[in-house]
Amino acid sequence: MGKNLGISTLLDFYGEMLTDKQRSFVDYYYNSDLSLAEIAENEGITRQGVRDSIKRAEGQLFDMEDRLGLAGRFQILKTGIEKIKKAAIEISEVNKRYGYSREINSNAKSIYELAEGLGE
Amino acid sequence: MGKNLGISTLLDFYGEMLTDKQRSFVDYYYNSDLSLAEIAENEGITRQGVRDSIKRAEGQLFDMEDRLGLAGRFQILKTGIEKIKKAAIEISEVNKRYGYSREINSNAKSIYELAEGLGE
Repeated sequence: MGKNLGISTLLDFYGEMLTDKQRSFVDYYYNSDLSLAEIAENEGITRQGVRDSIKRAEGQLFDMEDRLGLAGRFQILKTGIEKIKKAAIEISEVNKRYGYSREINSNAKSIYELAEGLGE
Repeated sequence: MGKNLGISTLLDFYGEMLTDKQRSFVDYYYNSDLSLAEIAENEGITRQGVRDSIKRAEGQLFDMEDRLGLAGRFQILKTGIEKIKKAAIEISEVNKRYGYSREINSNAKSIYELAEGLGE
């Protein structure tokens, strides 16, 4: 499971379990697209030092996802939430087309908005 | 946040980060309602040993929730999911009462079932 999720996603979920240094290096490398050499220069350490630190951090992130599977669980939730939004839109459209009911309209709107909020 | 969530819930989320021993002790104590003395007797260790192990495990569980907040995030999701189910039922009922539309009915049913699946 873990290996299918991107490092950026795993960093969002489990980053707070890493050291500050590991978290910044992974963030620079994966989110800010800095090279190992650039990070090394900015931090005043060797390229190999940066590389080792990132590798260790990746290992920890994958290990946490293998054990806890929470990023995967959230990903499944997101898929379900998208389907709920789609169904709510279909209800709104049919209801609007035939001018059926304000109550259906407002409930479909609530569902869409709730799902939107949950997906963030 | 962490302190408001029960140990059982935190064990569900983060238990796999504990040692097997810690995880069983917490499970016996909180889920199976064994006393410290009973666990100690079953395991052939002192009551104080069991107590220390559980205290350490609790500390780790709270610490993980303080850092990652994932149990709290799921709890918020569950509240939203319950609201979505309620709104889907209201749509179904209005739709049925006036015999409006099969399409509305099937979409409301999908929403309910999707939400039910997500809440588990």
